[in-house]
Amino acid sequence: MSKKPKPLEDVRVLDLTIMLAGPFCTMLLADYGAEVIKIEMPGGGDPTRAIGPFVEKDKDRILGGYFFSINRNKKSLTLNLKTEKGKEIFKELVKKSDVLVENFRPGVLERLGLGYYDVLRKINPRLVYATITGFGHPNILKSPYWDRPSFDLIAQAMGGVMSITGPKGGPPLKTGPGIGDTWASLLTAFAIMAALHYARRTGIGQHVDCSMYDAMLNCIERAIVIYSISGEVSVPMGNAHPLLAPYDAYKAKDGYVVIAAHWPKMWENLCKVIGREDLVNDPRFLTTNERAKNYDQLKPIIEEWTSQRTRKEIIDILLKNDIPAGPINTVKDIFECPHVKAREMLVEVQHPLNDKVKIVNAPVKMSETPGGVERPAPLPGEHNEEILCGLLGYSKSDVEKLKQEGVI
Amino acid sequence: MSKKPKPLEDVRVLDLTIMLAGPFCTMLLADYGAEVIKIEMPGGGDPTRAIGPFVEKDKDRILGGYFFSINRNKKSLTLNLKTEKGKEIFKELVKKSDVLVENFRPGVLERLGLGYYDVLRKINPRLVYATITGFGHPNILKSPYWDRPSFDLIAQAMGGVMSITGPKGGPPLKTGPGIGDTWASLLTAFAIMAALHYARRTGIGQHVDCSMYDAMLNCIERAIVIYSISGEVSVPMGNAHPLLAPYDAYKAKDGYVVIAAHWPKMWENLCKVIGREDLVNDPRFLTTNERAKNYDQLKPIIEEWTSQRTRKEIIDILLKNDIPAGPINTVKDIFECPHVKAREMLVEVQHPLNDKVKIVNAPVKMSETPGGVERPAPLPGEHNEEILCGLLGYSKSDVEKLKQEGVI
Repeated sequence: MSKKPKPLEDVRVLDLTIMLAGPFCTMLLADYGAEVIKIEMPGGGDPTRAIGPFVEKDKDRILGGYFFSINRNKKSLTLNLKTEKGKEIFKELVKKSDVLVENFRPGVLERLGLGYYDVLRKINPRLVYATITGFGHPNILKSPYWDRPSFDLIAQAMGGVMSITGPKGGPPLKTGPGIGDTWASLLTAFAIMAALHYARRTGIGQHVDCSMYDAMLNCIERAIVIYSISGEVSVPMGNAHPLLAPYDAYKAKDGYVVIAAHWPKMWENLCKVIGREDLVNDPRFLTTNERAKNYDQLKPIIEEWTSQRTRKEIIDILLKNDIPAGPINTVKDIFECPHVKAREMLVEVQHPLNDKVKIVNAPVKMSETPGGVERPAPLPGEHNEEILCGLLGYSKSDVEKLKQEGVI
Repeated sequence: MSKKPKPLEDVRVLDLTIMLAGPFCTMLLADYGAEVIKIEMPGGGDPTRAIGPFVEKDKDRILGGYFFSINRNKKSLTLNLKTEKGKEIFKELVKKSDVLVENFRPGVLERLGLGYYDVLRKINPRLVYATITGFGHPNILKSPYWDRPSFDLIAQAMGGVMSITGPKGGPPLKTGPGIGDTWASLLTAFAIMAALHYARRTGIGQHVDCSMYDAMLNCIERAIVIYSISGEVSVPMGNAHPLLAPYDAYKAKDGYVVIAAHWPKMWENLCKVIGREDLVNDPRFLTTNERAKNYDQLKPIIEEWTSQRTRKEIIDILLKNDIPAGPINTVKDIFECPHVKAREMLVEVQHPLNDKVKIVNAPVKMSETPGGVERPAPLPGEHNEEILCGLLGYSKSDVEKLKQEGVI
């Protein structure tokens, strides 16, 4: 664990998020040093705590893998926002914070008497209030769908990602990772930083409003501009490229590899390596466009060569001949990959109920203020005393009383 | 176009990026008001200018759709960094800038005598220097693969995304959108903001180092923690969920819909809507886990109902009965969607060689400092005079001379 500072150490974030889209956003802030206070309902807390896989000793199902990975570095405060005392503590925290993030459906905070426009910004005008919702917040630009529920699957469907993912000619498909949620997380983390930059300069906070649907449109921008200019509706293309070839995945003896040999020199080198120099002057394959057009005839030729070799054999010889290529790694391969080790991208974290568990490290390296994983995801209410006594000045007996009253 | 300020108006970014990963990152900075000066080689400039589709009048192929969409809001300065005068101008710009972004392979700037550690940070210690590379920058953490080329396809392959995307039981598949590039873009935009936050506070700049491979690991964090805890290697799952059902895509008369009816109340409602209340007590389908286990028997029942109805009919009745659902939209559907219109997510931009072209708007809404698209992607060198005369104090005749000497 690094002794260098982290870039966001002077930033405090109140985190009312649950599930994936919100917590993945505040994870980034916490990885780079922000003090993220996750506020959870007394009792169960974030429902993702109860989603597996679980370590063996986690009999109470409170620290499932899904939760454990994306809530590292955060503090947990249990707080019942339906009680008067809970609301009062929340407002005290808002006064002392820079950012509030939530991913409820629009209107939940208002119904609690804790709406941003009526209440929160009055007690802290510098507050950056970020919301992640399926269809955006009606206070900013009202979608006709603003009160619909959303999930990763729905965002990927409506936002067009599924219509351009899948095997060639096949039905639409979602991406494996839940980018319907997490694309919005990344954009929101960026926009929070932009709003914070402005707030530090001017003293003016604001509402940052990210819709999962809108976020997906950012992700598929190329398909949008293609349609706008040419009228062409993009469709699933498998792994191949519509205009360039060879640029695809190929079967190896022990899995799959990808090869990008679409430019002239790479293509010539590939022909040599696979012992088919005759193809260089084959009229079907003269240009990258022609190779793409006649790709059905080209793919089996390349795959005949790859399928007789291991991934390692293929990659070694291709790279030696300046042909971009790589293995298709499974998660198991990634755990054994020397790149991942050298870049310290998997980090062992002490699980409070287990030996260490490996999770993905802070994703971007920084020379002066590296991010990192300093501590595991919290147990529910693990930091109640630290926050209530240390930050807000309550006494230990106050805390005991709040607990008895069901406020925390 | 909004008259409100933008949050990053006090930030100047030098942009040496080409292709997708770099320009998509600086697009976000520009969308929110940063002055992004794209530095291009005199002559062709960014090679993506020459990638289609093209508007009809673009005979010279200099403003293809791929480039046009992600370089809006930026300024273009042509500058030959191989000339002494070009290097001198570049250093003058570095002195006056907050951020420099590049996505060359490591070592290119060093060979030009413009390396960050030896040169640039000495002339501007506050500079945030961000690099996006396939396997990270060796000056920070040296991957054994640091000098390999990378592409979207290679990052998705090695970073594990392909191993968990695809039809159930099928071979690995890449996602349609090029997230091997653009996931790194989003993370880098966030990390630049974190570094800028630190630089404004302390006066200390730094190197922000994002690897496309590392970025993909951030994207698949759940598969990593699952393997770490349970030893289970995630595989492609199609659109369905391993543990919850029904949560999938279904064929409609005129396309596809997604339905998320995996929790008890939603499931009961769905059974009623499709006229199969008998299923509620069917022992095969009692819990969401059992429905997932026996999903091969459940899917055809649901699809028999959906396939006889249009997407609109299905969505209307499901939402009315509190069952989360949505259409799988093609790009064409998105252009006609009332949500997209209400949220102003497609914006018409005046193409210098054409009528207007629609591209995706700035993705996140902000109440006080909204982002937006103020001007189209630049022609090569469009802002030479503005930058050289306005920012650096050269005369018009100096600029003419620089042009004749091939410096700009």
